[in-house]
Amino acid sequence: MVRINENYDKLSGGYLFSEITRKTRGFQQANPKIKVMKLGVGNTTEPLTKTVINGLHNGVSRLGFGDTYTGYGDEQGNERLRTEIANQYRKEGVEVNPHEVFVSDGAKPDSANIQSIFSLDASVAVQDPAYTVYVDTNVIAGRAGEFNKEVGLYDRLIYMPCTEENGFFPDLPMAIPGLIYLNSPNNPTGSVATKEQLKTFVDFAREYKAAIIFDAAYSAYISNPDLPRSIYEIHGARECAIEINSFSKDNGFTGVRLGWTIVPTDLIVEDTEFGKINKLWNRRQSTFFNGASNIVQAGGLAALTEQGQRESQEMVEFYMGNAKIIKDGLESLGLTVFGGVNAPYLWLRTPNRMGSWDFFDKLLNETHVVGTPGIGFGPSGREYFRLSAFGHREDIEEAVDSIKNNLKL
Amino acid sequence: MVRINENYDKLSGGYLFSEITRKTRGFQQANPKIKVMKLGVGNTTEPLTKTVINGLHNGVSRLGFGDTYTGYGDEQGNERLRTEIANQYRKEGVEVNPHEVFVSDGAKPDSANIQSIFSLDASVAVQDPAYTVYVDTNVIAGRAGEFNKEVGLYDRLIYMPCTEENGFFPDLPMAIPGLIYLNSPNNPTGSVATKEQLKTFVDFAREYKAAIIFDAAYSAYISNPDLPRSIYEIHGARECAIEINSFSKDNGFTGVRLGWTIVPTDLIVEDTEFGKINKLWNRRQSTFFNGASNIVQAGGLAALTEQGQRESQEMVEFYMGNAKIIKDGLESLGLTVFGGVNAPYLWLRTPNRMGSWDFFDKLLNETHVVGTPGIGFGPSGREYFRLSAFGHREDIEEAVDSIKNNLKL
Repeated sequence: MVRINENYDKLSGGYLFSEITRKTRGFQQANPKIKVMKLGVGNTTEPLTKTVINGLHNGVSRLGFGDTYTGYGDEQGNERLRTEIANQYRKEGVEVNPHEVFVSDGAKPDSANIQSIFSLDASVAVQDPAYTVYVDTNVIAGRAGEFNKEVGLYDRLIYMPCTEENGFFPDLPMAIPGLIYLNSPNNPTGSVATKEQLKTFVDFAREYKAAIIFDAAYSAYISNPDLPRSIYEIHGARECAIEINSFSKDNGFTGVRLGWTIVPTDLIVEDTEFGKINKLWNRRQSTFFNGASNIVQAGGLAALTEQGQRESQEMVEFYMGNAKIIKDGLESLGLTVFGGVNAPYLWLRTPNRMGSWDFFDKLLNETHVVGTPGIGFGPSGREYFRLSAFGHREDIEEAVDSIKNNLKL
Repeated sequence: MVRINENYDKLSGGYLFSEITRKTRGFQQANPKIKVMKLGVGNTTEPLTKTVINGLHNGVSRLGFGDTYTGYGDEQGNERLRTEIANQYRKEGVEVNPHEVFVSDGAKPDSANIQSIFSLDASVAVQDPAYTVYVDTNVIAGRAGEFNKEVGLYDRLIYMPCTEENGFFPDLPMAIPGLIYLNSPNNPTGSVATKEQLKTFVDFAREYKAAIIFDAAYSAYISNPDLPRSIYEIHGARECAIEINSFSKDNGFTGVRLGWTIVPTDLIVEDTEFGKINKLWNRRQSTFFNGASNIVQAGGLAALTEQGQRESQEMVEFYMGNAKIIKDGLESLGLTVFGGVNAPYLWLRTPNRMGSWDFFDKLLNETHVVGTPGIGFGPSGREYFRLSAFGHREDIEEAVDSIKNNLKL
């Protein structure tokens, strides 16, 4: 008799965004004439750039002729694309070799799968609040233990609170983890780690031989040149950190699917073949994955040309214009808002410290705007609310106007 | 201190095709003037059909305009595509509902990931020989135990030999497994299960509450209407079987990446939410995956139109024409060849029962043709050799001519 992976029963609840969809649908059914406005999901809305569209069309066209058709590509990604990604790092003064770049179908699968190459008894530290995928995949692997409903925590995870006091970047954990997840620019808080803050973690990880999983999916949103876009800007990070990134947020590839993960050859945790984490991830990807779509990789190559990068930069600036409108609007009401400067997310302190699901209901009922309750990202988010800068300009303006005119404070 | 998933150290060797590449490169370097011909890898070579190319271009174009751009899609796949895939089953008299269809980036990732939703102590039965992914992913999950080098077997896997005596479809296993992997049309043997053969396994799985993972990635190659293209043609299969399929082999999507998995709502292994395997796989995909590329799904939709299906059928017939040329050529030498009729693979008994790597070297040295040693798929393949019908016509003819003229028997 076959049984299921029992760890699935330990998951604390449905996926956050399913619950939001359910509530929104309920409101819409009760109020069919009201237009609901979304400032919630981190989903891109603007069309792909001209250069990328051309690159994708070329990618398609090549497959229509016998002499340019290609079948299976390398599981690690197209050699040219790996080289171009490495070149992007070099331009920012960071040494990454093409064979350290693993192209994938996005940052979410990589963030989810990366834990699987480490031992099942590794202890795991996560930021609180954090992107739910880091937590859920470790629950499913059995590393998180049981969910304690009263405190809203898994009993074997090491939580690193991100609060107003520490500027939403965590202090070093009080226990010694094997794996440390860090995300900067941060989803959901919109905070960005400084070099000094990252250095503290890199030094810690090297001292205790922990591995850092650094999710840099929003790095293109950093406009302040003093803030690190890659953890490899920190000395020693090549010995302890894996970095994950994506074409989703700066090139609008959320539905197109393309990302990459850097696994430095200097990251060695055991003196065996697979103790070299680059070799280990290579084996994982070769066995479980069959490469990102060749069409999509052609689009990625186009995005990395000079013209592609200029157009991508315009897209980023557009979304950051949205962020400013939201931030200014909320602050004009006297609300306290974090993030939204070097990141496309805003982290709103709920008025009167009300619970984040209560604020969700209040915002939806009074202003017809949907956002994301902070508690969905962890207990430290219980009095915060995430707003996203992804949206058409007129929709953002309409939502902010509605909040300014209708929210009862 | 973090450690690696120790099961990686139990993997018996490198990926089969890496070893073939290494040997071929060595030969090529020693003989730079000789043209090496490939009848080895199951990689498609013919361009995408007109209808698919148009569908893909449309998919790209839609992303270039604000009113047709889409970001994240459903993790389970585009609703229209799920519906069309279900309709294809209905046309063959098999009832599948759209919400039982999970679209993915291919059959390999699904074949690799499906084991992860079952308990780590599930016992696993595999055909011998078998597609290496079934074995390797279970080794990595820890279900296979240790590799015994002398016999070439993992000590906790249940091997089901596929031999000339049983027509390369296994008898029921001598132990009771939790998970049973079946692949028909079979890679590597080219054999196809009959309805009676599948029924034996479906009845067995229902009796012992095992789950069957049925890999039907080559089902489009079945031209004999008496042979089942789907396991759901067998009564009771909805209660015990998951079916995996792909656009790779009949539409040339090997590099484009699109597949699907059917998880029937009738497949229930425990009386809990996730005991319903459809819900369990849905949770797995929502957490670890972010949907197949929207562009690629547009191509898949085009492939499923009537015109797309006609063109796909022509592609299948083309490759099957190759298979006939290989089969006829080898048989004219007095060699014994199986498969190649309702499947794009041919399974050659090595002359004088020589070892399959020895035959690899002999074929390469004497005829300059690269094939795949049967031992790479399991110990029962030690005196067999896989040839693939994927290739341009003139390349296939050239390789077969070279074998006919130069192989010393």
